[in-house]
Formats: sequence, structure tokens, C-alpha cells
Amino acid sequence: MSALHAIRALTFDVFGTVVDWRSGIARDAAAILGAAGHTLDWGAFADRWRALYQPGLEQVRSGERPWTRLDDLHRESLLLILDEFGIRGLSDPEIEELNRAWHRLDPWPDAVEGLSRLRARYVLATLSNGNVSLTVNMAKRAGLPWDAVLGAEVAQAYKPLPQAYLTTARLLDCRPEECLMVATHHRDLVAARDCGFRTAYVHRPREFGPRAKNDLPAEHGHDLVVADFLELAAALRT
Amino acid sequence: MSALHAIRALTFDVFGTVVDWRSGIARDAAAILGAAGHTLDWGAFADRWRALYQPGLEQVRSGERPWTRLDDLHRESLLLILDEFGIRGLSDPEIEELNRAWHRLDPWPDAVEGLSRLRARYVLATLSNGNVSLTVNMAKRAGLPWDAVLGAEVAQAYKPLPQAYLTTARLLDCRPEECLMVATHHRDLVAARDCGFRTAYVHRPREFGPRAKNDLPAEHGHDLVVADFLELAAALRT
Repeated sequence: MSALHAIRALTFDVFGTVVDWRSGIARDAAAILGAAGHTLDWGAFADRWRALYQPGLEQVRSGERPWTRLDDLHRESLLLILDEFGIRGLSDPEIEELNRAWHRLDPWPDAVEGLSRLRARYVLATLSNGNVSLTVNMAKRAGLPWDAVLGAEVAQAYKPLPQAYLTTARLLDCRPEECLMVATHHRDLVAARDCGFRTAYVHRPREFGPRAKNDLPAEHGHDLVVADFLELAAALRT
Repeated sequence: MSALHAIRALTFDVFGTVVDWRSGIARDAAAILGAAGHTLDWGAFADRWRALYQPGLEQVRSGERPWTRLDDLHRESLLLILDEFGIRGLSDPEIEELNRAWHRLDPWPDAVEGLSRLRARYVLATLSNGNVSLTVNMAKRAGLPWDAVLGAEVAQAYKPLPQAYLTTARLLDCRPEECLMVATHHRDLVAARDCGFRTAYVHRPREFGPRAKNDLPAEHGHDLVVADFLELAAALRT
């Protein structure tokens, strides 16, 4: 705990760390596209949509294109994969409804209780690549008790660019070492650590579905490695 | 209600509209400066501190000085008024503690219940000149159920500059006419309206203390004029 006594704020990755994007996208795709008469492997559909996530972000991070919010990147990817999966003829409202599935993701079972316990002692902020309105809509639906919705859109920089982490810390009036980045992705944690953040790795073995191989990886020098948010709350004595 | 059916987000001024800054500042000044042996008119001290608020903001709005967060402007004003009131010899921690009185303001009695009702139907965001950390600390202490803490610091523009309102609406993914600005200050509401927001005037007759003259003013063309947040919730059918 020695490096953690100074922690005042917890900053959270959201997709995969707080919410189960794969099940939520598969569920809503099945509901919306199924109603239009389509049948396919909905998990594969979710995986393919998510696979276009980093390439989309990279176009913005690299400066190849100006700031574009994640909702808009998601929509562009969606049009591509609808074509790949041979789905044609959706109306604009249907496409918009499907795109907003990212606003309707369910939290992992421990998330709300864990966050509620952590919130009694720490400032809880999102540090997600999701845009503010997406993250707010998700939180309202799922009951995620954020103190502040910050991250990429507010910083105008997608993770893992340093500006995303440093702007969030500055807005919270915290030095980087007073922030604990919580994520299930090493790349995110390593980038946060390079900015001076403390890091907590949360294991989410089902992020990529029940059959994905995602064993607890070797420790990468994180300050905490926990199984879920309840273990995180216990480790932080809340 | 005709202009209000499209409302999706409520954006709130905070100082005076949600919280009673004058009582809170007077209370904490009395506690901190009183403990150091000082006696003075604490309400007058609060009024004088607040009187330096707009001149401080104006230096930033005008471009005379670069972006400076409200906590820092408050601290500069505090040093001036401590000198004016003849108070010398405070330690840096005492000054910092007193400056943070702005983080510890109490809500008006109707605020938490009214916001809780409104939150069931609308996105609630702060659109304050207070910095993010100030607003977050205040909300945690007072139980203010914001969905998002946005406003001047995130927009890097102090109200009533249009950028403060327009950036907040954009981050909420709302058109201006989908936002209802809630405030007890006409200047704030008029500036929001000029950006396309709908406006709700909330009467806070005790903002400037029990003896201040602050009758319900003539209507200035606001979409709603209400006595408190419970009346606002009723007017918006929540």
C-alpha cells in the first residue's frame, strides 16, 4: 500500500473494465438485426465491430483526421461491418439505434457495488475513449456512480496519448501520482504509468467472450492486480 | 411547455442557484479566522470576496491573462480581502483551508430533492464557472447528483462567453435548444438564450443574505420562472 496512500482519485477505463461490451453489442445486434430478419454469429459481429476500434482511433491520434468523437467512429465502423456481413437496407434510425448499443452496455456484476464502496473514499472519474454523452447515457442506465465523466473527449486526445491522462488529472486537481488508473488492458495502464499514475490491473477474463483465452497475465509492475472491483475496494480499504 | 418538449439536458449555474455561497463562506470564515482570534462581519467578508469574482473572471475573459482556474482566482481575491480586513499572519495551510470553503457550500434546502427528481428524466450537468475539482468536491459533500460536471474549465471559457455554453451542449451531444439553462442570474440566462438554450429562472431571494433586496424580478422572456427546484421538477413533469 505504500505507493497508494497518496491516491485521491481513481480513473477508470470503461469498455471491458467496467462494462461487458461484447455481450451488450451481441444482444442489441441480435434484437435489432434479428427483427429485420437477419441471423448471424452475434458474438463474431461484436468482435468484428470492436476490431475496427483501434484503427479508427489511430486515424485521430496520428493527426490523419481531426478530432472525431467515438460515436461517429463507431458509426463509420458499423457501416463497414454491415456491408461485410451482407446486411443491407437498414434505415438511418435503425443504424442509429444499433450504434447506440454502445450506450447501453451492462456493467460486470461486481462493478456497481465496487464503485459505490470506492466512491465513499475516492473521487471516481471515467478516463475512457468513449465520448461524454455515451459515458453519461451508459452511467444513467447502468447506475454507475461517477463523480466526473472526463477522458478522451474532454482532453481532445485518445488514449494512450499522454494528454488524455494528464488533462484528466489536471481537471481533478491531482498530481499524476495521486491518481490510480484502473483498467483491464496493459497498454492503457502502461501509458498511464508513464504519465506518473499509479495503476491497478483488473482481470476481466470474459471480455472477449466465454471461449477467449485470457488467463491472468504475468504482473507488469502494476501497483495492484485484482480480480474485480470488490477486491479493488478491499485492497484500498474501502 | 411547447418550447420545452425537446429538452434533454438541464445545465445548472451553481453558485447562488444550487448552493448558498454567502452563508457557507461566512460560516467557514468565522470558524477558521475566528479560531485565529479575529472577529468581524462575516457576511460582509463573504460579500466582499464575492465582489471580486467578476473582475477576476473578466481578466481571463478579456484575454488579459491566460486561463486561470477559479480556485486560483479565489485565492488571489482572498489575499486582497484579508489585507483589506486587516487580517495578517495566516499560514499557507490556513489560507488554503479558507479558500476551499468554496468547495464546502451547502445546497439550498430544495436542491437535492429537486435534482434527484429531475435526474430521473433529464441529464443534469453543471455549467458553472467553478473548476471541475471544486464542483466535484462540493457535489460529493452535499450529495448533488450530477450526471456530468462540465462548464467553464472544460470549455476553457468563463460564462457568459458563448463558448462555455456551446461546448457544454456539444459534449452532451445536444443541440442548444435541447438544453435548459437553470440559473438565478439574468445575465447568465440571457447569454445562454443567445446561444439557443431554453432558460429557467430560479428565484433565490436570500442569495445575498437575509437583508438584501431581491424581489422576484419582472419576467425577462424566460421559458420558466420558478421559486425553487421542486417547482422546476413539477413544471417539467418529473
